[in-house]
Amino acid sequence: MAEERGRRPGNPQTRELILAAAIASFVSRGYPGTTIRGVAREAAVDPALVMHFFGNKDGLFDAAIKKSMPVALLAESFEGDEDHLAERLVTRYLELWESPSHGPTLAAVLHSASATPAAADLLKELMREELLTPLAGRLSHDHPEIRGLLAASQLIGVAMMRYILKVDPLASMPAHLVAATVTPAIQRYLTGELSLEEITGAATAR
Amino acid sequence: MAEERGRRPGNPQTRELILAAAIASFVSRGYPGTTIRGVAREAAVDPALVMHFFGNKDGLFDAAIKKSMPVALLAESFEGDEDHLAERLVTRYLELWESPSHGPTLAAVLHSASATPAAADLLKELMREELLTPLAGRLSHDHPEIRGLLAASQLIGVAMMRYILKVDPLASMPAHLVAATVTPAIQRYLTGELSLEEITGAATAR
Repeated sequence: MAEERGRRPGNPQTRELILAAAIASFVSRGYPGTTIRGVAREAAVDPALVMHFFGNKDGLFDAAIKKSMPVALLAESFEGDEDHLAERLVTRYLELWESPSHGPTLAAVLHSASATPAAADLLKELMREELLTPLAGRLSHDHPEIRGLLAASQLIGVAMMRYILKVDPLASMPAHLVAATVTPAIQRYLTGELSLEEITGAATAR
Repeated sequence: MAEERGRRPGNPQTRELILAAAIASFVSRGYPGTTIRGVAREAAVDPALVMHFFGNKDGLFDAAIKKSMPVALLAESFEGDEDHLAERLVTRYLELWESPSHGPTLAAVLHSASATPAAADLLKELMREELLTPLAGRLSHDHPEIRGLLAASQLIGVAMMRYILKVDPLASMPAHLVAATVTPAIQRYLTGELSLEEITGAATAR
């Protein structure tokens, strides 16, 4: 590759260039359709350099979702009083899905995670570290991890129906009405009475 | 194919044989990994015969999910009083996902639908005809289609977290506790106050 001569392999700009190509590929071709070789071609670098930076395809996917998933923007909504936590969380979550810059990334990651176990594991790890653990840390009621997961299950379900499967009328309803209907359900998961007394620690101790 | 000589092409048993091979393939290889040729090989018939019965891969997937998805078993839970509809629905839904005969099929269909737009369209059509429309028909409150979809969004979200992504502690909690926590949210969607007055028919008239 004569045109690569001036570029120092291994420098940070090259890494960013590869990562941008990887994100574009995961978004447009999904996890199964993305290859180290294809990303290298897009970034105009040698495949060995992609492996040097990211190890393998899983490493590349992991770096791509960490770079592109708006987890920090979502986690910002955790700040504030607990009684309006669901309202802030749902509003921000729907804003991110509706945003032209974040929506396609979220869809690509959810697609990849439901289609590929390796991608599911990477998404779970990111969700746990960056979202579920910080969220649980802000909840003052019993079984905060289960509460956070129940909230997440409703949020993921709305995204599946509205943005992935695109089922009408849920897909075409204004976002603020979707938020108004699901917020009370999510607030109940976060701070309401959930009849979880039966769980003594067997499940949560894992 | 000399061993096929005694089998009459086009008879119903041959169709069932092909369909069984197709279901097995969609469950084990997913939608992208399933081919007309591969299914024909598994069923020991000519690929032309698969096309004769099912037209193309979408037709095969459509027939496979109609044959294997336990929609009738789920729809049975709609029968009975509206005040306990969510309880019956959630209990039956989790029973189906936990069942060794239906769980893998449900997972395969949800995988396929989140990974492939064509599969998503077929699942949506089946959901609408066999589940959402009959469910909405049993609801006595305003905006029954939206109510049914919101309930479906929570059910799909639970399946994603518990059976597809398998996030603990939600994945390892006893099913009856999961049911106890999500049932009130779903009952609210079906029969509660949802602040949907703003929707005048613009979204529901589609």
